[in-house]
Amino acid sequence: MLSPSIGKDLVFTKDALVAGIHFFPDDPADLIARKAMRVNLSDLAAMGAAPLGYLLALALPKDMANRPEWVSHFSRGLKKDQDEFSWSLFGGDTVSTTGPLTISITAIGTVDHTSALLRSGARLGDDIYVSGTLGDSALGLKCLTGDITPRNNVLIDRYHLPKPRLELGQKLKSIASSVMDISDGLAGDIRHICDLSTLGAEIKETLIPLSLDASKTLERFPSYKSLIWNGGDDYELLFTAPCHRAKEIDKLSQDLGLALTRIGRMTQERDIVIQDQDGQNLWRDEQGYRHF
Amino acid sequence: MLSPSIGKDLVFTKDALVAGIHFFPDDPADLIARKAMRVNLSDLAAMGAAPLGYLLALALPKDMANRPEWVSHFSRGLKKDQDEFSWSLFGGDTVSTTGPLTISITAIGTVDHTSALLRSGARLGDDIYVSGTLGDSALGLKCLTGDITPRNNVLIDRYHLPKPRLELGQKLKSIASSVMDISDGLAGDIRHICDLSTLGAEIKETLIPLSLDASKTLERFPSYKSLIWNGGDDYELLFTAPCHRAKEIDKLSQDLGLALTRIGRMTQERDIVIQDQDGQNLWRDEQGYRHF
Repeated sequence: MLSPSIGKDLVFTKDALVAGIHFFPDDPADLIARKAMRVNLSDLAAMGAAPLGYLLALALPKDMANRPEWVSHFSRGLKKDQDEFSWSLFGGDTVSTTGPLTISITAIGTVDHTSALLRSGARLGDDIYVSGTLGDSALGLKCLTGDITPRNNVLIDRYHLPKPRLELGQKLKSIASSVMDISDGLAGDIRHICDLSTLGAEIKETLIPLSLDASKTLERFPSYKSLIWNGGDDYELLFTAPCHRAKEIDKLSQDLGLALTRIGRMTQERDIVIQDQDGQNLWRDEQGYRHF
Repeated sequence: MLSPSIGKDLVFTKDALVAGIHFFPDDPADLIARKAMRVNLSDLAAMGAAPLGYLLALALPKDMANRPEWVSHFSRGLKKDQDEFSWSLFGGDTVSTTGPLTISITAIGTVDHTSALLRSGARLGDDIYVSGTLGDSALGLKCLTGDITPRNNVLIDRYHLPKPRLELGQKLKSIASSVMDISDGLAGDIRHICDLSTLGAEIKETLIPLSLDASKTLERFPSYKSLIWNGGDDYELLFTAPCHRAKEIDKLSQDLGLALTRIGRMTQERDIVIQDQDGQNLWRDEQGYRHF
C-alpha cells in the first residue's frame, strides 16, 4: 500500500522480457533479473522519474522452478539492483509456463507534479543528442552468439547490464524538449519522437558516439557497422533540445561524467536520414527491429 | 501519469495468466482478455479497493500476432471490461514469444487512507464466510474438457467470466476481520488466512453454497464433489468476521443481492478441517493446487 507524497505524480511503465528473444535462457540468473529491472528503470529515466517500486510477474518453466539454486540466484540479482537503485518490490506473481521464461515488470516512479518528460515536444531545428555510446550492447550480443571473436567482455557486459540514466533523465526535465530511451535502436526509436512532433530527423553517422571497444571491434568487423544505429538494447537516452541550450548540456555532461553528444537535428521533411560522410543515406525505415 | 487524490492510498496487484494453464489457447479472445482483467479486479476487491487503472504486458505467439482479427477481438474484450469496471489502461508492452500466450496485468486501485483490507486479522472463534457459490467454475472447466456432458453453459460462463466482488470488498472494510479472494480453491486459500493469524479453520461441507446448476451436475457426477472446495478459479471473497457482526452481514447480503454464507469458524488448532455430514474430515492439506 502506497501513500503518495503531496506534489508528486506517479508514472508507470511495463516491459516484458522473454527468454530466447531478450536474453539467453542460460544467461546467469542474476544478470537476467538485473537486466529486466534495468530495462524498466531506463523507461523511468526517460520520463525523468525517480524509482519508487516495482511489481514482478514471472512465468517460470518447470525446469527452472525445480532448480532452487537458479531461483535463489535470480532473487539475489533482484535484491542487488533493489539496493543499487533504492527501489522496493511492491508485489508480484509467479506462475508455471510450458514456454520460455517470461519476466514482466511494472515500474513505478515519482516525478514532481506535472514535470514528467514527454516524447512529443521536439521542435523544428532542435538538436538531437544521445547519452553514452551506442552499439556496444548489440556488438556484445554478437560476441555471445560467436559471430564476433574473440569475446570482448566490456561489450558483453553492456549487453547484460544496461545502465539506466536516471540522474540524466531527472536533470533533462528543465532542458530537453523530448526524451526517450533507445531500446530498439537509434533509427527505429527516433521515429517515435518524429511521429509525435510531425517532423523528421537528420543524423550524421560520423557524430554517433562509439566506445573504444566498439571502434576497435568494428575495424575488424566493418559489416556490423549498422548495429550502431540499428542494433538496439542500448538503453541510452535520446533527446532533443533547442540549439541555445547547448552550453547547459555541455555543463551537464561534465557534471555527470557522461558523454552527451549532438548527433543531428529535427527537420521539416518527415524522413529519418542517417547520413554517412559522403552524404549518402544509410537507413531505410523498414529496417527497424520488428517484434513480429 | 497519475496525480493521486489526497486521503487515498494506492494498492497494486499483479497476476499473470498462461495459455494452457489458466485458460485454453482457443478460448474466445475477448473472454481471455476479460478473464485476465477480472482475476486482477478480484484481487482489488479482496483489498476493498476501487479500480483505478491497469498495465498490460502481452507475450504473444507469432501465430496470434499474425491474426489481426484475434488481436482486435482481444482488444474489444479489454475495452468492454474497461467500460464495465470504469478503469483505464495506463500502459503496457507487447512482445513476441515462442511459448504460449502469457498475459500479465498490474492492477492499480485506491482505498481510503489506511483502510485496505488485510488477510491477517482473523481471531479465534470468528465466523468464516464466502460470497456467491463455489465450484461452478471448476465444474465449467470439466464441461470444457469433455469430462462432464452435456455442457452446462452457466457453469462454463462462470469459468470464462469471474465476477469480481468489488462492491462487497469495499463494504466489508468496516465489518470483516480478514478477506481474500478464492483463486486456488477454498481449502488451499483459507490456509493463507490461517497462517497469518496462527489459527486453524473448521468448515462444514454441507454449509458450502452451491448454485442450482452445480447441485444438479454433482448429482450426476458425485465424484467431482471435492471441486467445491478444491477446484479453484472461484474468484469469490472468503472472509472472517466476529460472530456479533452476523446481522450486519445478512443485511449487506440483502442490499447487494449476493449470498454471503457462513461456512465455518476459526479454531485454535492449526489444522484446516472440512467436515462432511458424518463429521469426517474430507481434506488433506497437501491436496491444494500446486503451481509447480
